[in-house]
Amino acid sequence: MKTITLAAALLAAPAVTHVPASAQQPSFATAAESDPAKLGWMQGTPPAPDKQIRADGSHYSFPMSRWSFSNWRTLFPTAGLTPATTPSLLPRKLRTDIDALRFTPIGANSPVTWSQSLGLNYTDAILVLHKGRVVYERSFGVTGIDTPHIAWSATKSFVGLLAETLIAEGGLDPEAQATSLIPELAQTGFAGATVRQVMDMTTAIAFDETYGDPTSDISRHALAGGMFTRPPGYKGPDGFLAFLATIGANGTHGEAFTYRTANTDLLGWIVARAGGKPLAQQMQERFWTPMGMAHPASFHLDPVGTPFAGGGLNASVEDLARFGEMVRLNGSFNGRQIVPAAAIAGIRAGADPSKFPAKTYTTLPGWAYRSNWWVAPDGVISARGVHGQAIWIDPRAEVVIARVASHPIAGNVHIDPTSLPAYRAVADHLAGTR
Amino acid sequence: MKTITLAAALLAAPAVTHVPASAQQPSFATAAESDPAKLGWMQGTPPAPDKQIRADGSHYSFPMSRWSFSNWRTLFPTAGLTPATTPSLLPRKLRTDIDALRFTPIGANSPVTWSQSLGLNYTDAILVLHKGRVVYERSFGVTGIDTPHIAWSATKSFVGLLAETLIAEGGLDPEAQATSLIPELAQTGFAGATVRQVMDMTTAIAFDETYGDPTSDISRHALAGGMFTRPPGYKGPDGFLAFLATIGANGTHGEAFTYRTANTDLLGWIVARAGGKPLAQQMQERFWTPMGMAHPASFHLDPVGTPFAGGGLNASVEDLARFGEMVRLNGSFNGRQIVPAAAIAGIRAGADPSKFPAKTYTTLPGWAYRSNWWVAPDGVISARGVHGQAIWIDPRAEVVIARVASHPIAGNVHIDPTSLPAYRAVADHLAGTR
Repeated sequence: MKTITLAAALLAAPAVTHVPASAQQPSFATAAESDPAKLGWMQGTPPAPDKQIRADGSHYSFPMSRWSFSNWRTLFPTAGLTPATTPSLLPRKLRTDIDALRFTPIGANSPVTWSQSLGLNYTDAILVLHKGRVVYERSFGVTGIDTPHIAWSATKSFVGLLAETLIAEGGLDPEAQATSLIPELAQTGFAGATVRQVMDMTTAIAFDETYGDPTSDISRHALAGGMFTRPPGYKGPDGFLAFLATIGANGTHGEAFTYRTANTDLLGWIVARAGGKPLAQQMQERFWTPMGMAHPASFHLDPVGTPFAGGGLNASVEDLARFGEMVRLNGSFNGRQIVPAAAIAGIRAGADPSKFPAKTYTTLPGWAYRSNWWVAPDGVISARGVHGQAIWIDPRAEVVIARVASHPIAGNVHIDPTSLPAYRAVADHLAGTR
Repeated sequence: MKTITLAAALLAAPAVTHVPASAQQPSFATAAESDPAKLGWMQGTPPAPDKQIRADGSHYSFPMSRWSFSNWRTLFPTAGLTPATTPSLLPRKLRTDIDALRFTPIGANSPVTWSQSLGLNYTDAILVLHKGRVVYERSFGVTGIDTPHIAWSATKSFVGLLAETLIAEGGLDPEAQATSLIPELAQTGFAGATVRQVMDMTTAIAFDETYGDPTSDISRHALAGGMFTRPPGYKGPDGFLAFLATIGANGTHGEAFTYRTANTDLLGWIVARAGGKPLAQQMQERFWTPMGMAHPASFHLDPVGTPFAGGGLNASVEDLARFGEMVRLNGSFNGRQIVPAAAIAGIRAGADPSKFPAKTYTTLPGWAYRSNWWVAPDGVISARGVHGQAIWIDPRAEVVIARVASHPIAGNVHIDPTSLPAYRAVADHLAGTR
């Protein structure tokens, strides 16, 4: 039996932030070398001992993560999101000129092709929509265009849009105190924060989102949420919501954006309570059914049945692209107004860029974080998740890109150099401005 | 937090066999009193502590089982079975004369109505097909006609039909030694048994299927398979297949049918190896896709990713009925020959009734156990699972009944008195012979 400690697993995922893109990076097997189909994970009955991947931390270690990110439900309890009886049409007009597109990665001296960038990024599946048509799709390893892949923090943008929808419908007051809705957290660091501050992650809470440190809050958070097998005698908080109750204060709310997943766990709680239904049910009723999602999806559940609002959605890139296209079209999709246009407008308006820590996000100059979405100065908005998950929405170019990946490094600051310029290159190309 | 020990959970489920139907039974809340929707399990974010159901054993204790049998994937790792893109037609011609049908339960003095029997049986959902048309459907509590419910040992009949299919296609020799296919078990009690003996459960293995005893083999088996949270420091076998390697010999193979789930775990292993694909994949490709199954289904996975062949399928009664209808039609369904007719004929031929322990199965006189199916002397064949799961196929009456339930007692010998006469009554009624 492979024995991988939790600490080793967490250390395999260097910090999301606080590491300049230029820093020395550990050396990893290439995408081709780490192809999970080629490596034969979990094949055979039973899989050979050295090919087994378990929920004990091996699942979160590279290169095993290249398999488990596409097989999450086989490792953990999940809530199902059911495809629509009749999936919405996503017409295909595939183009052959995209693979050869060239762009220069951020900080690099020489260009690479789009096709090359997919390997550099450890892409598992990617799909490009232009004016609502699929112009490009590609998948690798054990992942398909139509199979679920964990979206990590791209999940947050679904939750953020649900919150904006409730606000637009009058069911949630963004200026209300978060703890007036969730009195269970009145004695925590969230006391005094507004719903808006939770949505924009400007709360001043003591929560250390350093993925590389097994003693950090995000690591304790993962154990609380059952993202790893808990060690014997585990005495920590039991579930994501119980974890929130352990969070203290650190500063003054509203002063600066600091990326802390705990905010979205709280936002999911707020959405469930304000919307009067469990979060997964709202995802089903608001998005999966009316949008005509095509493929089974799921939500990671903690040991007490709470979906991981901060990062537990598993969906296909085709359905992630549908979601992006709905946002691009101001809430209109599949012949219906899925969410009020005002909900999207609230996100597009962005947040105060002066609250965005430019030094941390060197690849995102001038961006802001609004309602769990990343908003660029040129109107692009994006959902982003560790290890390279993205929904990229470029209204100007009428382009939506959905991408899932299993990059060995968690932090997108390491992945953006070969992905963001690629997205811009393909958008410009499709828009005819390049 | 509710604390329920594994022992308590297991003790809540009296023995499947060895308990005469007439024995004194513990007193349980009625079906109406234990309605899981009314009791409010797992409602709210988070559910109130006394409304939480966890994988720690509370999930297998009545009345919590009435919720968890319909929500298995939210508690455990699962492999998904995907519905067909276009579900097969199951025309509805609902009849209103079934609820009032009367029959006398086995051993009772006065009749009850069909409608009453559904409560007596703790039915969660039931569907009746006559000549391929849905003539009756009903669901209760948190279960729908279209939602998954754990099939328990009715799962075995799917695996048995896969084995018969491989035999009919020449891909599996029923007279081969089981351990020639699975040499990993050469030193176990399965040594010397043929594939046929495994299929008909006439192996002489040391495996005690007493559900009420927390030290019994079936309880150790459940822990090995991750059907309960393992106690701290658990040192037992890791997974269903590892459990098989711990089984010793007890007698001479081929002499008598003894119901032992371990045989089906081995049969699932044989099917995976002989069919060259994982069991869940064969279920998808052989049944779910070509039959046009309509609803998401899943398979419980143990901690090393092995599906629980002996009882881990979760499916809707509508899809269980499709499966039964395919068997009734000798393998033909949805305009295709799903399995060779010879595979069904092999099951219908039955086994030697003299090997069937009449004293144990007082409700099944003259029956036999063949290829993981229960075969009656009048041509009825049935898939059966603890707590009241059933697929009932009556070729003479052209009737198929699929039923899922959460009876507080595991053993069907306690449930048959109010279900088997009901099935026969509705079949006779529909066939016009009553």
